Formats: sequence, structure tokens, C-alpha cells
Amino acid sequence: MTTFQVDFQPIGRRGPCRPDESFLEFARELGIDLISLCGGHGLCARCRVQIVEGHVSDPTGADEEHLTERELAEGYRLACGCFPRGDCTVGVPPESLSTAMRSQIESRETEVALAPLVAAVELALPRPSLEHPAADADSLLAALRGRPGPRVDAVDVDVLRRLSPDLRTWDWSCAAIVRGREVISVAPPGSRPVGLAVDLGTTGVAGYLLDLASGEVVASKGTMNPQIAYGEDIVSRITYARNSPEQRERLREVAIAGLNQLAAELCAEAGLSATDVAEAVVVGNTAMHHLLIGLPTEQLALSPFVPAVSDALAIKARDAGLRLAPGAYLCLLPNIAGFIGGDHVAMLLATAGDWRGRHAIALDIGTNTEISLITPDGAVRSLSCASGPAFEGYHIKDGTRATAGAIERVQVTDESVRFQTIGAAEPSGICGSGILDAIGQLHLAGVLSSNGRIQLGSHPRVREADGTREFVLVTEEERGGRKAISVTQEDVREILLAKAAIQTGIGVLLAESALAAEELDVIVIAGAFGSYIDVENAIAIGLFPPLPLDRFRQVGNAAGLGAKLALASSVVRDEARELLDRVDYLELARYPGFSRLYGENCRLAAVEPAR
Amino acid sequence: MTTFQVDFQPIGRRGPCRPDESFLEFARELGIDLISLCGGHGLCARCRVQIVEGHVSDPTGADEEHLTERELAEGYRLACGCFPRGDCTVGVPPESLSTAMRSQIESRETEVALAPLVAAVELALPRPSLEHPAADADSLLAALRGRPGPRVDAVDVDVLRRLSPDLRTWDWSCAAIVRGREVISVAPPGSRPVGLAVDLGTTGVAGYLLDLASGEVVASKGTMNPQIAYGEDIVSRITYARNSPEQRERLREVAIAGLNQLAAELCAEAGLSATDVAEAVVVGNTAMHHLLIGLPTEQLALSPFVPAVSDALAIKARDAGLRLAPGAYLCLLPNIAGFIGGDHVAMLLATAGDWRGRHAIALDIGTNTEISLITPDGAVRSLSCASGPAFEGYHIKDGTRATAGAIERVQVTDESVRFQTIGAAEPSGICGSGILDAIGQLHLAGVLSSNGRIQLGSHPRVREADGTREFVLVTEEERGGRKAISVTQEDVREILLAKAAIQTGIGVLLAESALAAEELDVIVIAGAFGSYIDVENAIAIGLFPPLPLDRFRQVGNAAGLGAKLALASSVVRDEARELLDRVDYLELARYPGFSRLYGENCRLAAVEPAR
Repeated sequence: MTTFQVDFQPIGRRGPCRPDESFLEFARELGIDLISLCGGHGLCARCRVQIVEGHVSDPTGADEEHLTERELAEGYRLACGCFPRGDCTVGVPPESLSTAMRSQIESRETEVALAPLVAAVELALPRPSLEHPAADADSLLAALRGRPGPRVDAVDVDVLRRLSPDLRTWDWSCAAIVRGREVISVAPPGSRPVGLAVDLGTTGVAGYLLDLASGEVVASKGTMNPQIAYGEDIVSRITYARNSPEQRERLREVAIAGLNQLAAELCAEAGLSATDVAEAVVVGNTAMHHLLIGLPTEQLALSPFVPAVSDALAIKARDAGLRLAPGAYLCLLPNIAGFIGGDHVAMLLATAGDWRGRHAIALDIGTNTEISLITPDGAVRSLSCASGPAFEGYHIKDGTRATAGAIERVQVTDESVRFQTIGAAEPSGICGSGILDAIGQLHLAGVLSSNGRIQLGSHPRVREADGTREFVLVTEEERGGRKAISVTQEDVREILLAKAAIQTGIGVLLAESALAAEELDVIVIAGAFGSYIDVENAIAIGLFPPLPLDRFRQVGNAAGLGAKLALASSVVRDEARELLDRVDYLELARYPGFSRLYGENCRLAAVEPAR
Repeated sequence: MTTFQVDFQPIGRRGPCRPDESFLEFARELGIDLISLCGGHGLCARCRVQIVEGHVSDPTGADEEHLTERELAEGYRLACGCFPRGDCTVGVPPESLSTAMRSQIESRETEVALAPLVAAVELALPRPSLEHPAADADSLLAALRGRPGPRVDAVDVDVLRRLSPDLRTWDWSCAAIVRGREVISVAPPGSRPVGLAVDLGTTGVAGYLLDLASGEVVASKGTMNPQIAYGEDIVSRITYARNSPEQRERLREVAIAGLNQLAAELCAEAGLSATDVAEAVVVGNTAMHHLLIGLPTEQLALSPFVPAVSDALAIKARDAGLRLAPGAYLCLLPNIAGFIGGDHVAMLLATAGDWRGRHAIALDIGTNTEISLITPDGAVRSLSCASGPAFEGYHIKDGTRATAGAIERVQVTDESVRFQTIGAAEPSGICGSGILDAIGQLHLAGVLSSNGRIQLGSHPRVREADGTREFVLVTEEERGGRKAISVTQEDVREILLAKAAIQTGIGVLLAESALAAEELDVIVIAGAFGSYIDVENAIAIGLFPPLPLDRFRQVGNAAGLGAKLALASSVVRDEARELLDRVDYLELARYPGFSRLYGENCRLAAVEPAR
């Protein structure tokens, strides 16, 4: 049978597709995990793709039902009902991809502008003799001074401790790893320095190993923050640390041990050793930052909630207990405030292309949600709001983290409900994006009143037991007799409180900048949760202002990307410090009328998202 | 009875002296330990003093016998036969003082030009508020920037680790201890930084605690280098270190533990804690330097004998294991070569007033003797010669270290011998200065031939037993039946080898600079042994060229003084680096004709010291 070459972008997978094979089927064949809640029946409208080039089958009834005129004109189709009629290039929007799939895309964004602080210099040193009995370190520095560039005049003491035997082993040839004016490592000739970029989240940790000469990511890995054993969230860890210096030290130790292990594993994957890591850039919220390097955190938790330090730090990795190259540095991006850390700065750095010169909101949703409003003059107003852990699946009856089996997408139809689980596994609970979808859909379906009350009789899946109302996503029967998975009235309340906090934060920033929501050119949504939410449903519950969807950018783990950028470029680190100078921190609790606004926002908006 | 006010200088002790009380007796009454081998009978001529002002009794026959016309004219007298005839000021030359007494004088020389790298800045910081939630370190730096002087822009990470609770305890007042652009400690308001200067010898360690604001020495202490347990001399320690990394690490650990204890004891004496020590300057030979901070020493012991590093180092004290102020630095003066270390540089710095603008030799006699020849243009030629341990009392039959009971002064008369022991204790052996005296005196008395052979029958105390000739200093009878203390033929040989090494070193430096010995304006003799030797006797055996005695300066522990100077002044440290640039290191073993010269110098010179 004839086949056509179909090319999925920006993922970059292609192959021959039969004319009777839908793009949904063919994408899956190529390992592209498009979202489909209805099983390819044109009902859920989640498998949307955009035909960029080439001919395809005519729009179906489902296309016409779920897509606007303009979207159809722009080439959007539902992949489940669309077939090739020639070679095609098919664009896949991130929102049509499953969680796991999106992460792969993110790692494509790491082609970074290179201006690393660390470089390797190949040297052949003169062998000392009785005529010229130069000290080994002197020979090294003299050879470096013979080259262009800034004067190198120091050798780290841990380098000195192994320099003499190493030079003799390598017969006086070596690669000097230089950072600024200092030699931070001396490696065998031909060695290339690598750097470690880490996004140290309260829960998850993402690590990337970069070749600092090419900017290439040579290994990456996600892991858990081992501090979780001492408290799930920031506040419980600060409380734990406050109990005694030993406990604070324990939190430091486990975090550092985690990073040492991460570094070792990444290096092993790349065929390297941790001593090849010449520099580490770690970004995290202010509490993670402080706990990682053993700074006190008591003052973070008490008004006026100040960090021990906000400026960017570059300390010897060994002073933090990291076992990297002998004289390697650990660099930490600046903290904006007690509850706005270097991870937010990293996110801003990574998304500068999205917001520069515009009116923009950039936010990272979590237990604490950090929000910045940027104006075209480059001024930044930032605040943090206590949005609580509901969006992370906590304090939700059937809530779960975003792991296999978690319901991540929900669609409520008149009679029933559709959902997709992570990894297409048997449903085990609801994660943040699923619960947000559910609330949004229930609101749009009229199941929830404007004050968030579940209306009895509004839908076949609404029920009341023991005085608790709930909407059942998966019944006991559907689960083969196990407990039903449902959204309870209490769950709705938790989500409304969380969304109210964020909504209020955005509102306060807009008010402070005397801007109307419509004046925002772009809303950058960063972070794991933010990447996976359905923006329409988020607008439906009032989390975001009702702006056209094309003004929203779901950028994934932008903090990790920011860490990679900062690792690869001193220019980016300078930008981080400049950014800090431009930031005006706003303490939400001090904002007049905060409570009134927050109270108002605990309701559901009666708005239809604009297109 | 009438008394006269007698003032001993430069010691600065004074009191009323009776006209029938000799200056020797009165000095002892005041606790001044003048040397006297003959018990005050005008025989040994060691208790020489200079009448600077006032009237005294007429010169005695002993004065006329032992002093030159010129010396008499200049007011020199033997203290044992000199009595006041009015109020007097009496100068005491260092060579007339006992060992212990001289050390006290040395500590008077420490009034140093102050330009410390470390200073305390008193600050009252603004209390953070919700309106101004500045990070603690930011407040600190902002307050420092409000003051004149170079921009301070970094806070050591160990300072950050305690800053927040400390500031709150001290109600936002503090003394910031600043070094260059960095805050290295934050102390309670009113704190003054102190510094630690250490002369880390192979055997002895001298420590001084300086108030860095005043330059005053607030405590000082001598102790032993605990590495002695792993080898008496440098070479045996390098051998020990070479056996395994663990053994090298052990040497490092014990040395650091010793310094930590020294710091703690000095601080306790001054009512301070080791965390008040904001900076340490340590000087030592290259091997001690390397072993202290864990640098490899193998290459020091193998041709071409190069140091791992020669440049001055300033490393974080914690990186060496020193427990001082949180961000304190350990500074090490530069090494000139594998066997000429920072202690020699320190000595040169401390004695610059003696040699600047002159033709000078400056040397520090030990197992290795470092010698520098300085010309009026500031050029320095340095070499090291293996003089062996004989001058330190090793490899000598009855040799001992310079401790109580050691014979430190010897005078050979026609019929007998006189001597003085350290602390006037029962004689237990001979220390370096005693053996040198003995050889010199035996040579002058004709007991030794020019090739160093003890002549039978030349003196009642010469005897031969079991084929070994010896000169008996203390007989069995004089010791109450215990073994006699004597100088053997073998001892003479050892000393001649040692003096030949040094004599050759001086000769080579003179030849390289095309100078005759008479052109030397000054010979600076530093170090414990050098301070206590009798220069006339040293000249007698040929150790030093036969120059007038007033060209010799015995400067005591000049390395320790140099360490204090460097601690107190960044200018001195700059001088150290400049000195290093001006030094031309000369490898003695490579000098043509070295062996011939050395062979010739193994004889005794037939010279009478010039006056």
C-alpha cells in the first residue's frame, strides 16, 4: 500500500504512514504519547494537532464540533479522525502530549548560549631540572600566563595536593581547568570539563550534566529530594530544622548526599567521574537553598520572613560537602525573598524570551506559588502566595502525586465522565491537573454552583453519602469492587482556596501595576503542575484571567532550564543579579484589602474562556 | 650606704646599686642572666657590658687583658670587675646574655608597622520588617558599603551559617571582621580581631597572638612540633610521608592538631577563644609548609628537589583543618626552593633593616642551612647546604638539645676548661653552641691540628681510650662517678663537615657575586643555634669569614618576627612576593668545583679573628 512520509514536530519523529492510519494511531506507533480520553472516537477533543504542511483528509463532524472556524483554518484537527493524503508535517502542541512525553520535549530546549565560567586549557609543561627547578604550581601558572585571556594567578589548595604526582604520571601534559583567575582542577590531557545543573525542588530533584565546552546535555536524571523523609513540605522541614542544630544538619547532610549520588550517577551514565564536574549550579526555593548549605532557616518562618542571604553565592563545593572536582564551585542563584528563591529567578531567566518587552505574568504553581509581573521596561514585581498542597494532590480525598495511574485529565459529559491516567495505567487516584480538570469541567457542566457547592441531581455521578457530596470519577464497579475514586465537596473547597490564593496574587500584582488583565500579553506557566494543567479548565475555575489561550505558555521545568543556562553562561548569571536589582518584592499579607479580595476569589467565576 | 641608679638596656631593668656591688652581681639580682664561665673572676671575659652613660670604677687588669683599646674607649668593661660611681646606663650586648634571657629580648622587637589585612568594623544594622524584609547578609553588606574603603561584596559561607541567629542575639549590633572584599567573621560588638603568627620549625614551634588593631603581642608560647614522633629531621619525615598517603595525612593531622592546640592555649591566655583569630600566618621550611597543608613531598626529596608550590598562599584556614574564625585565612609565605622555605623569607623580611642597601649575608643554621647573599641593588642569591644535625647536638657523642644542663659555652684554658650550662644546671651534655665553642677553643689552644686531629699531650684533658681520642670537658670525678662528658675525634669530624658545608655555601655565594669576604658589610645570623653561638669561636673554626665582630648580627628567631610582621602588615607580604621575584636560587650541587671547595673547607682555618 502507498504510504506517506509523516513528520511530527517539534518532537522530530517521522515515518511512513498508511492512508487508513489516523495520526493518533500512527503517532502512538512512533512512540508519541498523544492524549486521548475517549479512545479515539472524536469525543474528548484532546488529541488536537496542527497540520503544518501537506494534505490530509477533510475535517470530520467531530472537528467541526470541537474546533473553531479559525482553528480549522489554521490547520488544527483531532488526530483520531485525521488521515494523510500526501507527505505531511504535523505539529503537536504540548497540551496534546502526556506528562512523560512533554518532559522529553523540555530537554530539547537546552541549546544554550555558551559563555561558561570554566574552561579547559591543554598544557605541556617544561620538566623541572636542576638548572630550572621551578615549583610545579609555578610552572603551571607560567604556562597559563603564556596564553591569551585574563591572568590566572591562583591554584586551589586541593589541586596543589595532587598536582605534583599527577604531572609526573601524565609526563607533564595536562588539561588545566580554569575558572576566572583560579585553576580549579588539573586533569589528564584531553579532558573536557562538565558541569552539573540541579533544580532542587521540595519534592523532586532534576539533574543535568552539561559538557561545558559544547553546552550539550550528556546525561540527565530525575530523583526525589531525600529530605522528604523529614517533612513533605517546606514548613514542616523548617520546623524540623528548628528543633535542634543536629536536625538542621541532618537535613543538610541528606540533601548533599542526594546531590553527591545524583552527580555520581549522572557521571557514570556519561562515562565520567564526579571529579570531572568542574562547577555546579543549583536552584531551589529559599528554604531548600538554605538547608542545602547549612544556613539557618528559623528567620524564614517568622515574620518578616527574611532569608539569611539573597545575593547569588559561589562557594567551594567542598564547603557544602559536595565531592566534585578538587576546586569546584557550587553556585546558587539569588533569592528574591524568604519565599521566592533562586528557582523562580531561574524560571524567569529561562523564559525571558517569552516575557521580555511585554506585559507578562510568570508563575510557578506549587504549595507556595511564586508570581512575577513584568512590564516592558523590565521592572519586575514578585510575590509569593500560600496556595497549599491541593494542586500537588495533597489534602484531596483521592489525591495522589503525578505517578503512573494518576488521573491527569478529566472530561465531564452530560451522562458520564472520561479520563486519562498517566502511563494509561489502571486509575489509582487523581493528581493535581486531574482535580483541576474535574473542578473546571464540573463547573462548566453546571454540577457546581458559583460558590462551589455540588448540586444534587445535576449529574448521574453526583451522590451523597454520610452527609458528604461527591462526584464519582470511577465507580466501585468500574474498579472491580475497590473503593470508588471521587471528587468530594471538601476537595472542591480545597481547590477553591488554592486557586483563590493564586488568583488574588495575580490580581494584586495587576492592581499594583495599574494594569487590567486584558493588557497582559503573555502568561508563562512554569513547573511540573503548571505544565500539565488544562488552561481552559484553569480559566473556567478562575485560576487564570480569561485571556485567549494563545497568550498562555506552559513551559515545563523552566527552573531546571534556567539552572542549565546559568551553568553554561556567565552572562546569564549576570542577568540573574541584574534581575534581582530590578525586582520589587511585594508582601501579600501587607496588601490592603487582601482578605476581602481573597474571600471574593473563593468562589467560581461564571466565565466562558475566550478564544 | 649610698646607692646609684643603674639602668640595664635594652632589657629595661633598673634599680639602686651599691658601690661595692659589681654589675655582674647587681644584674643577677635584677634577674638578668649574664654569662659567666669563671664565676666572676675576670677569667672568661664573657660578661662584657658597655657603659653608655655615667661613671664607673677604673678598668681592671682583666679588662685590659680581654678588651681592645678601642673597646675600652667605647666603654666596654667586664661586668664582674666593674662598680658604679654614680647613676649609670649599662648596655648589655646579646652575646653576654644566656639563652633564656635572649629570648626575652627578642620579644621586644615586635613593634611592627601596622597595615593588617583584617579589620573590625562596628555596625548597627537596621532591623528587618515586612516593609523592608532585607536578607540579613544584604543588610550587613549594605551597612559596610555605607563606609569608606574598598567595596565589601562577599560573606564567607561559614559566617552566613551563624549570622542570622547571632544578629538577633546581639540585637543587630555587631563587629564585622573584614578582609579585603570579604566578611570573614561577625563578632559581638566591641570585638577586636587577633591574628596568629607561627614559626613552624622542624623541631620547635613558636606562636604569637597579635592584636591586629594595635600590633601588640597579647600572648606568645613555644612548643614542640608533634611530627617529631614520626622523624627527627626533615628527610626522615619526608620518607615517612612517602610510605603511604595515610602516613602523609598523619603528619598533616598532628601538625594541625598542634597548631589548633597552640591557638587555643594562646587565646586562653589572652582571655579569648580560637574563633577570635581572624588570620594566621605560618612560616616554615618547604617541607613543613607542604606537610602542614597536605601537599605531596616526594618531589622535594628527589632531584631536582622542587616544591609543589613556591608562591605565597592564602587559603581558608578550614581547608587546612585549622579551627579559627569562621572565614579566617591561613597565609603561608612563599618558598624559594625545595630546601629554602618561607621561614627563610620571613627571616629576610625581619632583618631587612640590617641588610638593605648593603653587601650582606643572611643565614639560618640548622640541619639544612639556608644562606642568602644580598647586594645593595636588592638582588638576592640564595642556596641551601646540607650542614647536618651536628650543630643541633645530634651525631655528637654527648650531644644534646639546648635544654637545661646543656653545656652552651666552653672556654679552654692552658690547664683546664670552663663552661656554662643552660639554666646553670648540672651538666648533662653539650649543645650546638657548646660544641662549636669547644672546637674553636681547642683549635685556638693548639689541641687540634689544622686537619682537626686531636693532639695527644697538647692539654691535660686530652686522652685516648680504645683507640678514640677525646677532650674531656667534665670528668667522671667531676660528675660524681657518672660518665665523663667529652668531645671525641669523631665529634670534631662531624663539626668540621658541618662547618665546611656552610663555609662552602658562603664561599660559593661570594664567588658567584664576585665579592671578597671583606666586602661584606654585615652577616646576619638568625635562628636559635645562630643566636647562641660565640662568633669568635665560629670564626676560629672557619665557619664565618674573619670579619670584625661588629659586622655580625645575631638576630634570634627572626623567622618568628618575620611571621609577626607579615601578619601585621599587607605591605610586608607584598615585600615577600617582591623578594621572591628578586631571588636567584643557586643549586649548590651543580656549582663547578663544589666538591674541591668542600674538601678544602673540611680543615680548620689558621686564622685569628679580626677585631
